[in-house]
Amino acid sequence: MYQQQWRKQVLESKSKLLVTSVKKLYRRGAWRNIRRIIHKTHAPDIGLLLEELDRAEAASIFQMIDTTETKAEVLSYVDSKIQRELLEKLDAVESKKLVSLMDSDDAADLLGGLPKDLSEQILSSMHKEDSEEVADLMRYPEDSAGGLMSTDYLAMDQSLSVEEAIKEIQAQEEESLISFYIYVVDEDENLVGVLSLKALILSKPTDRLRDIMTRELITVGLETDQEEVARIVEHYDFLSLPVVNDDMALEGIITVDDVIDVIREESAEDLKAFARVGGEDESFLGQFRGRFPWVLFSYFGGICAFILVSSLGKKWIDSSFLNLAAFVPLLLALGSVISGQVSVAHLTQHEDTNFDSEFFKAFLKDLGLAGIFTLLFCLVNYWIFNNVFETGKIAISVSLILGVQILFASTLGSFVPTILKKMKLDPAIASGPLITVIVDLVGLLLLFQWGM
Amino acid sequence: MYQQQWRKQVLESKSKLLVTSVKKLYRRGAWRNIRRIIHKTHAPDIGLLLEELDRAEAASIFQMIDTTETKAEVLSYVDSKIQRELLEKLDAVESKKLVSLMDSDDAADLLGGLPKDLSEQILSSMHKEDSEEVADLMRYPEDSAGGLMSTDYLAMDQSLSVEEAIKEIQAQEEESLISFYIYVVDEDENLVGVLSLKALILSKPTDRLRDIMTRELITVGLETDQEEVARIVEHYDFLSLPVVNDDMALEGIITVDDVIDVIREESAEDLKAFARVGGEDESFLGQFRGRFPWVLFSYFGGICAFILVSSLGKKWIDSSFLNLAAFVPLLLALGSVISGQVSVAHLTQHEDTNFDSEFFKAFLKDLGLAGIFTLLFCLVNYWIFNNVFETGKIAISVSLILGVQILFASTLGSFVPTILKKMKLDPAIASGPLITVIVDLVGLLLLFQWGM
Repeated sequence: MYQQQWRKQVLESKSKLLVTSVKKLYRRGAWRNIRRIIHKTHAPDIGLLLEELDRAEAASIFQMIDTTETKAEVLSYVDSKIQRELLEKLDAVESKKLVSLMDSDDAADLLGGLPKDLSEQILSSMHKEDSEEVADLMRYPEDSAGGLMSTDYLAMDQSLSVEEAIKEIQAQEEESLISFYIYVVDEDENLVGVLSLKALILSKPTDRLRDIMTRELITVGLETDQEEVARIVEHYDFLSLPVVNDDMALEGIITVDDVIDVIREESAEDLKAFARVGGEDESFLGQFRGRFPWVLFSYFGGICAFILVSSLGKKWIDSSFLNLAAFVPLLLALGSVISGQVSVAHLTQHEDTNFDSEFFKAFLKDLGLAGIFTLLFCLVNYWIFNNVFETGKIAISVSLILGVQILFASTLGSFVPTILKKMKLDPAIASGPLITVIVDLVGLLLLFQWGM
Repeated sequence: MYQQQWRKQVLESKSKLLVTSVKKLYRRGAWRNIRRIIHKTHAPDIGLLLEELDRAEAASIFQMIDTTETKAEVLSYVDSKIQRELLEKLDAVESKKLVSLMDSDDAADLLGGLPKDLSEQILSSMHKEDSEEVADLMRYPEDSAGGLMSTDYLAMDQSLSVEEAIKEIQAQEEESLISFYIYVVDEDENLVGVLSLKALILSKPTDRLRDIMTRELITVGLETDQEEVARIVEHYDFLSLPVVNDDMALEGIITVDDVIDVIREESAEDLKAFARVGGEDESFLGQFRGRFPWVLFSYFGGICAFILVSSLGKKWIDSSFLNLAAFVPLLLALGSVISGQVSVAHLTQHEDTNFDSEFFKAFLKDLGLAGIFTLLFCLVNYWIFNNVFETGKIAISVSLILGVQILFASTLGSFVPTILKKMKLDPAIASGPLITVIVDLVGLLLLFQWGM
């Protein structure tokens, strides 16, 4: 996943070039040139561009897109914050038109991210059929087949002939219909078969769909988990997968591009889980909530280790040194959990290989989190060691050292992956062991040099 | 990725049912019934079935597949060991026919996995054109666009009319051609545009391809890294991506199903890298080679920590207890690296939620590896502590405790993820912290109870 980030980055350098040149032209007011560039640029790249510009720039560049169709497509590629900003600048008529032109699954995602009054206003002004479809989609949980599916598909009656089917395709007004497969239904609108466009072209004009379609169907239900959906699409190499209700009536289709997003999401989740970073939310509070439980868990593990070592060690020695020794596991555990969290956050969230402003913003955010952990655990630790374990004066020193360790682990967790990327080493492989060893040694040095 | 494994497993239970019923019918010699089942089963599922049967069963079931086309498709879904076993039972004529019918990228992968004499024999008996294509593909590195691409694509001259293009599609003999896009070339066979089947159907019969094709092409070179390929397909939501040489001549296409495999592979690699499990090779020796460097690295980190703590601590105390305390970081580091390696190996390689024979096979393999590490590090550690650090009698006890710690960490790393799965907890999230805390506490107990 993030290994790609330090490899040859054709895609990234291409989009950087786009951003720089558009910004330059924007400052010069060279609207004609910008229009020409936008016209030649693919919708996903315009999406990337808008995400890099500031509000005002993005809004006026968005207006320079030629057609409403392209605008709708671009809108489906930007994140929900920018979708909201762009839509708020448009009047009701234009927003409505844009949303109607989007794929129904993208439209549902977009409306789900808008303030309630704005989304209701748009929904109420849309064609009844469209708005009902989208409102339906918004009801399903995001990680179910229902939440993932689109209602834009080609369904045809099994009694049609090939010639009639081709005529019907040619008559479709919506260009966005995903149409590599035709889903074949019976008179009750229940799914009975599937047919590729290729098979259609290869058949005689007079053939009936029911005679040329594939009847061995693989389908999923509305409530099927998105990871099960991903496994099925992957296992059968499908380009899309039909979603049916309990009566086998076709409700929607899931396309392979959405499945790729699910697989990416999943694997980022796994890595974060392994690094004990919980939560999707990348806000400061969200990150705090995701990381805190694991830091706390490690702290209590360390406290157990302290109790164990200090009581067993009493047989051998009876000095403050025993308390220092018993504190080692706690110090190492907190250093390792914090540095792991920060380095994985850097690896998964930040693509850059440079110490640029984006890097320092992320670094300061992590350091801010570490600051809060430091304050919290310094105080709690001092209280526990002073009042519960009654360790005397070392309660102050070990608590301060613990705080320094947390701040140092966070700093190293930020810098080491980027330094390794600059050295063309794989940060995923080398970060963990390297950071752990350095953090451990520095923590031990602090503890045994200044602990007493 | 592996989170799915403990969720609702429609796919897995379906294929288990298939395996059990076919095995039962096989024992009864009910060939007719097996044939009927095989006829109704999708090729990827037959592939799964063959992987679960023993050699003889698999070979005779493979022969019951109706058509050579389906046989070729099934062959592309099984792993290379089974491909070899199945092909070795066939005569040259049939093997040749099967390989010719496979997609060229799958055929190249298959031949690459066969013994050299067998693959050359098959290649030499194939049509010259086919065999040259496949031999070409075998030259590119597996993780480059060239190694990933297939040479089965539709390319047409830009001067053709829509009517002529449709006729040409209908005349294609190879059913397997991937044909959602038509790649449009000029008179020098250079790629100049792309066209979807849908666009073809929507155009007038007399339109020329050059007038209706999309000219804004996104292409990759033969040597482009597979992860860059994955990013591009993902970014633009493509179903396939053309691969061109330096002169823009079309060399092949990469399809989205291969891209999904790349993404899966990548994310497993990232997770393994994070858990310090190197290497793709799942053999005993391969796993040893992948894991050993990280265990060794941790050991040396621990030795540094020992030197640091024992020299700093001399100021405060002068007894064997100092050596025990200084040994703590080494003991914890080795426990954590070993348990992490084993638990991630279990999470990524074993789908089962039960303590079945597959689980115990994996458990014993990991324990065998741990046994070798134990032997190695016990001896090395004893030698270092006895001869270099001259710690006296505790050299024996700490080395033995280190060995017990390694074996215990490996055992816990095997059992805890599966226990968590049985308890319906997410093993990815809970394994790491839980195992670390238990292994740490047990190691410390051993060390301070019996270390002197």
